[in-house]
Order: sequence, then C-alpha cells, then structure tokens
Amino acid sequence: MKKRTIITARSIGFCFGVTKAVELAKKILDKHKCLVSLGDLVHNDLVMTELKEKGMRVVTSISEIKGCPFIIRSHGLPPDILEKVKKQTSIIYDATCPFVKKVQNLIRVLSADKNFIFLVGDSAHPEIKAMKKIAGKNCTIVNPQSNTDFSYIKAARWAIIGQTTLSLNLYRTAITRILKRIPAEKITIFNTICPVSIERQSEALKLAGNVDLLIVVGGRKSSNTEKLVLTGKKINKNTILVETPEEVKKLSFANFQKIGIISGASTDVSCIKEILRILRNHPAQKNHRG
Amino acid sequence: MKKRTIITARSIGFCFGVTKAVELAKKILDKHKCLVSLGDLVHNDLVMTELKEKGMRVVTSISEIKGCPFIIRSHGLPPDILEKVKKQTSIIYDATCPFVKKVQNLIRVLSADKNFIFLVGDSAHPEIKAMKKIAGKNCTIVNPQSNTDFSYIKAARWAIIGQTTLSLNLYRTAITRILKRIPAEKITIFNTICPVSIERQSEALKLAGNVDLLIVVGGRKSSNTEKLVLTGKKINKNTILVETPEEVKKLSFANFQKIGIISGASTDVSCIKEILRILRNHPAQKNHRG
Repeated sequence: MKKRTIITARSIGFCFGVTKAVELAKKILDKHKCLVSLGDLVHNDLVMTELKEKGMRVVTSISEIKGCPFIIRSHGLPPDILEKVKKQTSIIYDATCPFVKKVQNLIRVLSADKNFIFLVGDSAHPEIKAMKKIAGKNCTIVNPQSNTDFSYIKAARWAIIGQTTLSLNLYRTAITRILKRIPAEKITIFNTICPVSIERQSEALKLAGNVDLLIVVGGRKSSNTEKLVLTGKKINKNTILVETPEEVKKLSFANFQKIGIISGASTDVSCIKEILRILRNHPAQKNHRG
Repeated sequence: MKKRTIITARSIGFCFGVTKAVELAKKILDKHKCLVSLGDLVHNDLVMTELKEKGMRVVTSISEIKGCPFIIRSHGLPPDILEKVKKQTSIIYDATCPFVKKVQNLIRVLSADKNFIFLVGDSAHPEIKAMKKIAGKNCTIVNPQSNTDFSYIKAARWAIIGQTTLSLNLYRTAITRILKRIPAEKITIFNTICPVSIERQSEALKLAGNVDLLIVVGGRKSSNTEKLVLTGKKINKNTILVETPEEVKKLSFANFQKIGIISGASTDVSCIKEILRILRNHPAQKNHRG
C-alpha cells in the first residue's frame, strides 16, 4: 500500500472573531479571575473547557450572573436580554463577532426604513435569536431547508438577511424560494455570510473532491462547522466531523490513503496539530508503511 | 351548437400612460398642426395612422425634425439623443410614460450610488435603449430568455431592473438566473413591471383558462401585447394576436364557443368595440345560432 498523504486546508484554526473573543476572555480572567457568559462564548467544547479552568462560568439564567464581570458571546445578545444583564452587573465586555455586529446594525437600519426582513437561518441559534429581537415585529425567520409559504406577508419593501455561518448554497436556495413571488416594490438581498465561512466552504468543496476522507474538526454545536460537513458531503460521502483528538484515536483509517483536514471557525489550531500528530503516528498507518 | 359567449377582460383600452401621450399629441396637433416623434409615439399602427392623419410625422433621423414641435415618445428617450433634438427644435413635449420615467429616475440614483445594473429586457426596445444610456457604463442588458454568464462582472453592489412591459414570470426567471451566484454584498431587485401590465397579465391568465379562444388585441411591435400573448399561451394554445378589426373579419370562429378578449396598453377602446361588433355579427356565428 502506498504512503498516506494528509492535506491540511489553508484556512484552519480560529477565525478573526473567535480569536478576538477568546483573547478578550483570557485577558479578563487574568484580571478578575472570574467571568460569566450566557451560553457558550464560542461553540467549541475544548475551548470552553480551557476557559472554565481559568474561572469562566457559563450560565443559562440571568439571575446566576450575580455581580460577576459579564461577556457578550460571539453570536451577540438580544437587546432586551442585555438590558436585564445590566441590572445584574456593571462590568460588561462585548465579544460579539464583528461580522455579526455589522449585520445587527444593518438590521437596525432596515427596520427603521420599514423593511420587512427575512432572516434565513436556524431559529434555535443564538445569532438568529438576537437578530430577530433587533428586527422586531416586521420580520420572520426562514428555515433554509423547509418550504414555508410567505404569500400572507404584505409589505412594500423587503430585505433578505442570512445567518453569517450559513452555507452559500443553502442561502441561495432559500432566496430563490422567497423570490418565487415578487410582489414587493423593492427587495434587497444582503450577502451576510461571513467571508471566513465562504472561504472555508469553498476550500472544503475543493478538498473533498481531492481526498479519500475529509475530516472536519469542530464543535458539534457549531453552525459553521456543520455547514462545512454538509458542503464536504456534497462532493465526498466520506466526510466526517471530529470534535477532539481523542475521537481520532478511536477511528480506523486503513481504507484511506489521502486524508484532508479542515476546521470550523472556533477550533483552536493546537487541537488540529494534535490530530495531525495522531494521524501521522496512527497504528494503521504504521502497519501499512511496513 | 350552443350560443357563442364573448367575455371581455375588465382592463382593456389605453393605459394611463398611453392615454396621456395620445391626448397630449392630439392637443399639440390641434394647436401647431404639425408634430414630430422619433419612432412611433406608441406601438400601435391604428393609433399612429390616426395621429399621422392629423399632421404627425414619425421620423427615424434627428435631422428630419427641422424646427417642428417635437414629442418624446412614451418609451422615453436617451439623454444624448434629447440633447441633439434640442439643437433642432425649441418646442419639446414629454410624453414619457410616468412608470418609465420613475424607473429612469431610479436608474440615475442607482448609478450615482455605484451599483452595477442588470437591465432585464429586449435590447432592441426603445425603453431599454434609453435606460441603458442613462445607466452608462456599469450596466448590462439581460435578455430574459437567454442564458448569459455574468461571472465576469465584478461589483460590490448590484441592482436588477426589469423593462416595464416584461411578463412577471420572465422577469422572475431572469432574476433567479442572475442570483445563481451571489458574490455581491448587496443586490437590490426592483419590481419595475408596470402595474397595468401585471394586472392585464393576471387577467390574461385567468381568461385563457376559461375560454376556447383568447384574442389579444394590440400592436405587433408592442412589447406588453406580446407578453399578454405569451402569458395566454401558457394556459391556452388557442391564444391569438390581432391588430385590426379587418384581421378579425378574415378569421373563422366556427370551432370556438367561448371567446375571451383582452388588449394591450396602446389599443384604443374603439378598436375593441369594433372587433366585438364584428364577432357578434360574424357569419359563422349567425349560422350556428340558426
């Protein structure tokens, strides 16, 4: 059997927004020794475990904040929740991803300009939840994979916004479906998909076609990681998601000679390095190398 | 055989813009006894013949204007041509359709705001020609029925504009094709299809499904009339275009018991009344009535 090849994607590790959020959290923890976030700061269990070891607390209820410094997670926070947080603590740090922040500001402008807003994304995801609250009444969440009827909505101006971590392909499908009727005088479509997500999806697509197995390293709760897996699977059914180096140890790679590795935006590069080390020293590989 | 039924559409005769243009032309002709237009004022030979009898001249070259009062046709005029016309005559009347005018102003705003503009329509039609000149360099005409590749175009902001007389269905198809790639940060789609066109298309669709034969009365050069025929044919292959009452006299209606009549936006109601009169007294019908 030939020697195994491992191809690592060009864009791996933390994205700009996650780097900023994690660095900010570490800095605060060094100073205050404690920090609270409402839900995970970023969607990656390994990263969250590390932060928790440094004193971070992830709570699910505002009442648990109790005077601790607070950090707004990378996915943003609905304005009403932020108001409630302010009553619990006076020290608030903002780790909202700059791209998410840009979209939130866009939604504010569009709402003030009386646009009816379609938010294409996952209604259970914190990013979309925050955006919906900002948009207010004249807005609806569109599940990109379901065939909702929008004919009941009456408005002169419409805007279409996508969750920043959506796959460009899913976003297109949703837009085409929304546009099937064009009763509005003006429909504005904003390409709000984060440039990092677009770049990684495009790399996943290329890589998937060029390897026997594509490993996507990322959190199981991470939306952008999920979209990378979906994107890879379109080209190569041997596309798998792994969250930790431990998981890699349990897998067999005997059937795969060419392996590709890509990561979600909240995956630390040290985790990828560890996975690469395991893969290179994997027993199956040693055996094959003879 | 049962008695023949003739159903006339609710919206027939001149639309608002054509009424305005024809009335203005008649008023000027009463006053000046002469009037020049570059190309047909409206796309209807019967109407044009009537105006020509009153002293109107339709020219194809600016040099033929020679000091006569000039009227801007309902489809609008490119700005550079208008400048040349101004050198030939000092009396200029504007009969541009109010909807076309609105779209022209919109194009001016979008161009100034650095949008790349897709003009969906017929490149040979005077309306689109005028719009293209207004849009300038950052614009391309999209034939709604051909599959052009737009991937070479680089722009951050895009706008999609449709010829006012386009069928809503064709416009949708063209939009979907343009949107297949969404590299732009912002794409704005304007529903520029004239409300009269939309209403008549919707009536043509309903009527076509309810009759044995649909007669669309209108000019052969008229874009909105052509779209009514296309719309009718989608439901009923027995959809025909007639331009004059004379044409109706030559046809046989023996096989049709239920006939629907609709008209383009530049068809005079007197022409439709004459066609109705002919149909009611048509020999074939008399025979059938016994």
